[in-house]
Amino acid sequence: MISVEEARARIAAGLKPVAAEMVGLAQTHGRVLARPVLARLTVPPADVSAMDGYAVRAVDAVAGANLRLIGEAPAGHPFNGQMGHGETVRIFTGSVIPEGADTVLIQENATASGHNVQVNEAAEAARHIRRRGGDFSAGDEVIPAGRRLSVRDIGVAGAAGHPWLCVHRKPRVAILCTGDEINLPGEPVPAGGIANSNAAMLAAFVAAHGGEPLLLPIARDTAGAVAAGAEAARGADMLVTTGGASVGAHDLVQAGLAQQGFALDFWKIAMRPGKPLIFGSVNAMPVLGLPGNPVSAYVCARLFLAGAIAVLGGLPPQAPRLAKARLGAPMKANDRREDYVRAMLAEDGDGWVVTALPTQDSGMLRALARAEALIRRAPHAPEAAAGEVVDILLLDAS
Amino acid sequence: MISVEEARARIAAGLKPVAAEMVGLAQTHGRVLARPVLARLTVPPADVSAMDGYAVRAVDAVAGANLRLIGEAPAGHPFNGQMGHGETVRIFTGSVIPEGADTVLIQENATASGHNVQVNEAAEAARHIRRRGGDFSAGDEVIPAGRRLSVRDIGVAGAAGHPWLCVHRKPRVAILCTGDEINLPGEPVPAGGIANSNAAMLAAFVAAHGGEPLLLPIARDTAGAVAAGAEAARGADMLVTTGGASVGAHDLVQAGLAQQGFALDFWKIAMRPGKPLIFGSVNAMPVLGLPGNPVSAYVCARLFLAGAIAVLGGLPPQAPRLAKARLGAPMKANDRREDYVRAMLAEDGDGWVVTALPTQDSGMLRALARAEALIRRAPHAPEAAAGEVVDILLLDAS
Repeated sequence: MISVEEARARIAAGLKPVAAEMVGLAQTHGRVLARPVLARLTVPPADVSAMDGYAVRAVDAVAGANLRLIGEAPAGHPFNGQMGHGETVRIFTGSVIPEGADTVLIQENATASGHNVQVNEAAEAARHIRRRGGDFSAGDEVIPAGRRLSVRDIGVAGAAGHPWLCVHRKPRVAILCTGDEINLPGEPVPAGGIANSNAAMLAAFVAAHGGEPLLLPIARDTAGAVAAGAEAARGADMLVTTGGASVGAHDLVQAGLAQQGFALDFWKIAMRPGKPLIFGSVNAMPVLGLPGNPVSAYVCARLFLAGAIAVLGGLPPQAPRLAKARLGAPMKANDRREDYVRAMLAEDGDGWVVTALPTQDSGMLRALARAEALIRRAPHAPEAAAGEVVDILLLDAS
Repeated sequence: MISVEEARARIAAGLKPVAAEMVGLAQTHGRVLARPVLARLTVPPADVSAMDGYAVRAVDAVAGANLRLIGEAPAGHPFNGQMGHGETVRIFTGSVIPEGADTVLIQENATASGHNVQVNEAAEAARHIRRRGGDFSAGDEVIPAGRRLSVRDIGVAGAAGHPWLCVHRKPRVAILCTGDEINLPGEPVPAGGIANSNAAMLAAFVAAHGGEPLLLPIARDTAGAVAAGAEAARGADMLVTTGGASVGAHDLVQAGLAQQGFALDFWKIAMRPGKPLIFGSVNAMPVLGLPGNPVSAYVCARLFLAGAIAVLGGLPPQAPRLAKARLGAPMKANDRREDYVRAMLAEDGDGWVVTALPTQDSGMLRALARAEALIRRAPHAPEAAAGEVVDILLLDAS
């Protein structure tokens, strides 16, 4: 059995980022930038006003002065003349500051009447002006390669003049659920059988984490069926299996993959839930074998599959982001397996308080769905008192 | 000027959830359930084993005993006979416990040879059995209506036998950016013009928050162009405009909407950035007018548009979820406007430390993209010392 950390490192070492594609700017959210975004434009393109008001010379715009209104320059329509002494031009947020002006008199401090603008409060020099290139200049790298694009990044790339971005494509993740007892939801369930929860859950998980799921038909419990599934996954960037990763005689995933030339990297990790995790490759396609138990499958997906999709998608390897919370109830000492304990969250004035659910049976999918966090208990963690700060993994919508 | 809270309440009051549709289970992630999910199956469907091992009677399975192996029951293949005294059946995780057995001898505690199974360690009564219906029973409400579906919920619905779920459809949100100075990224930029950042950013924002964006052509600064844009949005569940919401003479959004019969609810809110926010409706279609400044537009989108899409999508009105962090540097007292201060996050052993960015100029889109959180400063908040706990809004990928 290897540690969670070692498993994560070995999985990451077995993955290569997928190639890039050009994607329309508005569709790039969550993708990882494959080439840096260099600004094609300077922003602002000139000195522009940050307010609605009047372009003036500071020396003219003293309290009580009257200025002659010689024109207006709405945003997008720069004033083409030169502004002289005692003159002013009506401007708006985003308007280019006319030649000759050096500050902005905000409209709240002026009274306009016909071609006369009276200054009610003096305009300080060089105020309310956004300088040319203040945000960025053409040629600047405004977003580095390797960054997962937020909607704000999309705003920056748009302002920089990019209609397309070069991003890693979505990793294609084939999902192969195995077992004689499982049936896709809505399909007939024979005696002794159950409806499968992993297939749709993992397909949604892959999509939520930026991958493109490819849901294969369920493989029955023969090595040949598993081998055929692995063959059907050819061309995917990763194959994820569920079930058959334990030690029973009916655990056929490894036997089936072997028919396709499986190279095992490791199996079994020192964690709970989810000990029987397989990692290896079939003809250069990485294979992650999740436990069949849906609670274990989900926790392993959060701890390993999410990170694997991220690395395939172009990000550097990274452990899941943990948060801190105080324990609402004491916890017993842990054994040698890293434990992920389903828990509920509450909030008080100082932040989160986390309390383990009474049921930790990994067969209870409903309790997992209700849980709001997993408390991470390190191997051999000593007992912990209420109020102690612990690491938690937030169980958000994904 | 009204408060952020009042604005949020008035927006929510002006919205109705969109109708429902049937969606394939694997595609329902993030949707809001319109009808409760009632289990069609009982899970587990029978008493099943939680381990690989041997079904036994506890009275037989004392240390040193030898049991007669009469068959096996892999998951999905129940044993059809009756197990008598001194007998055992090979079982696996998920196998139905055969008639006559009352506990599980785990395989680690047994030695099998031909038809003989030797008990190395006594099996306690009623161990390693998941009871019929232990997770849920047919007819149970396993997910209530009104819940936004997580991937774990999809697992539960799958196990409950549902291939389709009845969810609210994605709200269609039309986006109308206005301004003579703006051009979609990649389009020619005339003198005094800029590339637009809001259109693609908001389209991505709407999609990231569960809506379906409809990006309208940019409306030039005439009331007629804005009116034509509002007309083109007909059939959408909401219209979002940007720009033209300020007080300048070239602020034409309200004038344009008026041509389509605009009913104003409010405009101007006591917040920074983003004072000029419009809310109202055109022919029963709600209209949210965001500021043209992309930083203000983004912050207002986070504070108001995200919640509006959630309500349209079937959720109850809710303020954005705030987290707590300690200040890394002191902050000045606030004025009467609720302030959202762009900030960076760090972590120490006790949780997050948040520090305001030096630049708060709402023209700086790049600083917004780099920011990791917004510090919420209540109206008239007194000055705050380093180390004080404040509310933050995490600036995640969306």
